[in-house]
Amino acid sequence: MNLLCDLPSAPAGEVVETLIAAGALRIERIVSRGEASPPGFWYDQDEAEFVAVLSGAARLRFADESGDREMRPGDWVAIPAHKRHRVEWTDPTQPTVWLAVFYRGENT
Amino acid sequence: MNLLCDLPSAPAGEVVETLIAAGALRIERIVSRGEASPPGFWYDQDEAEFVAVLSGAARLRFADESGDREMRPGDWVAIPAHKRHRVEWTDPTQPTVWLAVFYRGENT
Repeated sequence: MNLLCDLPSAPAGEVVETLIAAGALRIERIVSRGEASPPGFWYDQDEAEFVAVLSGAARLRFADESGDREMRPGDWVAIPAHKRHRVEWTDPTQPTVWLAVFYRGENT
Repeated sequence: MNLLCDLPSAPAGEVVETLIAAGALRIERIVSRGEASPPGFWYDQDEAEFVAVLSGAARLRFADESGDREMRPGDWVAIPAHKRHRVEWTDPTQPTVWLAVFYRGENT
């Protein structure tokens, strides 16, 4: 199985596939094609999230930061539970592949 | 922070960095430069593991399979706890970057 192959064909909207679900852990592949969070929308998740961009390009915004974070292939962030964030932009010219790991608990 | 940058310089041997540790979850970046498991060695882990190759090339072997699994960028496998496996080969000509997620519990 390959994270970068068999991408859903455009225009399918953002496509989320669960690769692993085990107890409180969930690993997802997310493929975006220009989607962004709706205006004014903020994720406010009960779970912590590790998320990396594997291909494509995106910009993440955190409510407590003044600017966007550019996300290029290999870039990752750890998002604590309830840290408000949104997807400001994904590249409309190519698929952006995210690998997201959702989990419970704080980093130690 | 980027998974594909700031790779440890050769020849450093296999380098493991823990990116996230939260309760039973551990996310590691592993960089191999031609390393393989010692002859006759098998991993027999208490934890389940999701592992993907992000760059480079490798071959994994599972004790209950007759051949190796080729691992190219984007390829991933889910390895249940105590499923015996070994790294048969990693490309000696370039760094191989693995992203590994170790966790407890069975896939649901």
